Amino acid sequence: MRLSRYFLPTLKETPSEAQIVSHRLMLRAGLIRQEAAGIYAWLPIGLRVLKKIEQIVREEQQRAGAVEILMPTIQLADLWRESGRYDDYGEEMLRITDRHKRELLYGPTAEEVVTDIFRAYVKSYRDLPLNLFNIQWKFRDERRPRFGVMRGREFLMKDAYTFDVDEANARKAYNRMFVAYLNTFARMGLKAVPMRADTGPIGGELSHEFIILADTGESQVFCHRALVEMAAPGPDVDWDDLQAIVDERTGLYAATEEMHEPARFEAETAESDRLSARGIEVGHIFYFGTKYSKPMNAVVAGPDGKEAPVHMGSHGVGVSRLLGAIIEASHDEAGIIWPESVAPFGVAIVNLRPGDEACDAACEQAYAALSKAGLDPLLDDRDIRPGGKFADMDLIGIPWQLVIGPKGLASGELELKRRATGEKVTGSLEALLNRLSA
Amino acid sequence: MRLSRYFLPTLKETPSEAQIVSHRLMLRAGLIRQEAAGIYAWLPIGLRVLKKIEQIVREEQQRAGAVEILMPTIQLADLWRESGRYDDYGEEMLRITDRHKRELLYGPTAEEVVTDIFRAYVKSYRDLPLNLFNIQWKFRDERRPRFGVMRGREFLMKDAYTFDVDEANARKAYNRMFVAYLNTFARMGLKAVPMRADTGPIGGELSHEFIILADTGESQVFCHRALVEMAAPGPDVDWDDLQAIVDERTGLYAATEEMHEPARFEAETAESDRLSARGIEVGHIFYFGTKYSKPMNAVVAGPDGKEAPVHMGSHGVGVSRLLGAIIEASHDEAGIIWPESVAPFGVAIVNLRPGDEACDAACEQAYAALSKAGLDPLLDDRDIRPGGKFADMDLIGIPWQLVIGPKGLASGELELKRRATGEKVTGSLEALLNRLSA
Repeated sequence: MRLSRYFLPTLKETPSEAQIVSHRLMLRAGLIRQEAAGIYAWLPIGLRVLKKIEQIVREEQQRAGAVEILMPTIQLADLWRESGRYDDYGEEMLRITDRHKRELLYGPTAEEVVTDIFRAYVKSYRDLPLNLFNIQWKFRDERRPRFGVMRGREFLMKDAYTFDVDEANARKAYNRMFVAYLNTFARMGLKAVPMRADTGPIGGELSHEFIILADTGESQVFCHRALVEMAAPGPDVDWDDLQAIVDERTGLYAATEEMHEPARFEAETAESDRLSARGIEVGHIFYFGTKYSKPMNAVVAGPDGKEAPVHMGSHGVGVSRLLGAIIEASHDEAGIIWPESVAPFGVAIVNLRPGDEACDAACEQAYAALSKAGLDPLLDDRDIRPGGKFADMDLIGIPWQLVIGPKGLASGELELKRRATGEKVTGSLEALLNRLSA
Repeated sequence: MRLSRYFLPTLKETPSEAQIVSHRLMLRAGLIRQEAAGIYAWLPIGLRVLKKIEQIVREEQQRAGAVEILMPTIQLADLWRESGRYDDYGEEMLRITDRHKRELLYGPTAEEVVTDIFRAYVKSYRDLPLNLFNIQWKFRDERRPRFGVMRGREFLMKDAYTFDVDEANARKAYNRMFVAYLNTFARMGLKAVPMRADTGPIGGELSHEFIILADTGESQVFCHRALVEMAAPGPDVDWDDLQAIVDERTGLYAATEEMHEPARFEAETAESDRLSARGIEVGHIFYFGTKYSKPMNAVVAGPDGKEAPVHMGSHGVGVSRLLGAIIEASHDEAGIIWPESVAPFGVAIVNLRPGDEACDAACEQAYAALSKAGLDPLLDDRDIRPGGKFADMDLIGIPWQLVIGPKGLASGELELKRRATGEKVTGSLEALLNRLSA
């Protein structure tokens, strides 16, 4: 992308309404713009990061056997009456009446809709296990939306719903999502710790939150230090038997504030291993058995021909929230430091003197070579001073900056900077292009 | 994808509520499920087609210089009061009140939001031209939603908004969208004819609808026959000067019912060239000057430093509607015939006897080879009778069917069927795989 033909509205001043660093940086770097309280437009580089995060989430869901569907944002109130949640859900539900006076709502989650889809088509245990996921906008009418995309009202969520014939199989499905989440967050450069969690309005008996640690986290969490350092299992696991991987983690103490038992923490964890920190929730998985299938009559016939309610779980990832979480975990005073896997562009080419024939030609050469190498370069060809370009490229957090100016070209000593460390190497254009493409 | 692990709920019976063939086939083939009047869930293969269509639209927008953003679904009523449209829009607008009694709405279109984004950041003619597009769900509370996704209430739309310093430049932007649309629809196997159109509630003075011809079309259209056969210009055009391409088309008579002038049609078009047919609108472009920028004070400073309202246009493609339009244009009695560019899978591998060692091995070999060739195969490994498999693969319209059974394997005479023509060729597994991958 050539910046002169792009739309990158960075701000010089720090917006005063933003209380946390990720919110400030997302506004300053031109990732989002607030359109109403808790409702954001995604500007070009924000949308690019959002789509990269979404794609990682999608790929790891599919690897775990989940099948993608897309449920509508607007749902029927009557479906929620079937499950008994319509009246319980309270003011967080955005309730709507259409022109024919039918009661609708903007889905805050989709257990009811997916159960309705399931019961329409699936009748036999032979069609199980089934895991249907979707990545769709949700709305929760928070009383006090804040922290930018971390607690917005309109937000993008991945929600997967598992259907199994009995609890034993449902737990296997739960484990698949457990491992998928470890791999998902690891691919974004995050260390997410699964913690026992309260099941809240979703209900059920078994639930884990996936929490990343950050000083600005919304809640206090308590866990064994080893959990933070444990590597993700990766894709090459036996997806039919993940119990050992799950046990290795759930065997160590880890709990959110609501579930914390100080005495147990001390009994189970040596003092030097105890970690108490601030955390940000990025995922949440639930097994809730027949809580929805029973009232909504989602039954399957078993091998014996007898019908029984299907066992369900639901599994969420806060896709838009992850941008905030990643920035909280990865930034410095100059701006965002994107992990390469989610960066809006792989490398910035900084043209120090647009209009200079040699500079322009070298930039075009770099642009072509890096595009060909699949590095998705952003060419800063704007007619502004170099200082402004460096500041913007630092602010928006592109992993690499290739700086091309007349002096460097003449001496064969161009500069390549790594955003994360500030480390610089110099060399000829060819040498630096080879290094980036390697 | 292996069908045994997938979710493909096809229906044997034709749903009685569906009045037109695309709606019937989308329900029968398991592409969509109605969740409320005019509101659909997208089932796995429906979503795959939707995403392929979306991606073609996106690529052609980007090729024409448009930059992608994403605006929220929920908008502020006050923004629409600024433009003066809030009271005018009528019952089609889904109006919402949140917990704090603020007036919101589910966006039926986004001229106001994008103008608000523009005025927040862009101040100078030097930042123009600018074309911002997004692909987002919209809601129009149709009095009588019908025809499935053709006239739904919640629907996916691509809407692009162009900003230019004056009318001459705005017309160039209009022409870029005009040509982008011709290329977009051609890539989906559609012959879309641009027709002079009424500007309706969007307003403005210049507008074209892009119409595909189909017997079941919603409205009557009138045009010169040559327009239907004219090839799309393709990507290798001079994007800065497209007037000749536009003139070649707008020089021939073409109008929708509302704009039709019979006397002019007869005067301008020889009788043998006159075509009157049913049409389906798949895109609509508008130039409306300062209709929104003036009341909303979206101004830019010109070279002389003087501020003036920016000249705007808006340009929509009905992304979800296109599924219905393509099916209306391409189906037979057995089901859908997807053009290869939007097919949910490139080829179906029909295993006639799952469990037979040789059949399973050959299917796995084919699956691996066709996956590697990027053909995105669907392996029908279900334990049902061959007739059911053939019927389903015809119904869902996969372009190629590779049929693998014990007899064919023994004789080296397997069958490859082309869905569109029914044409069959036989050969060894290797020969047919080579043919498909070529």
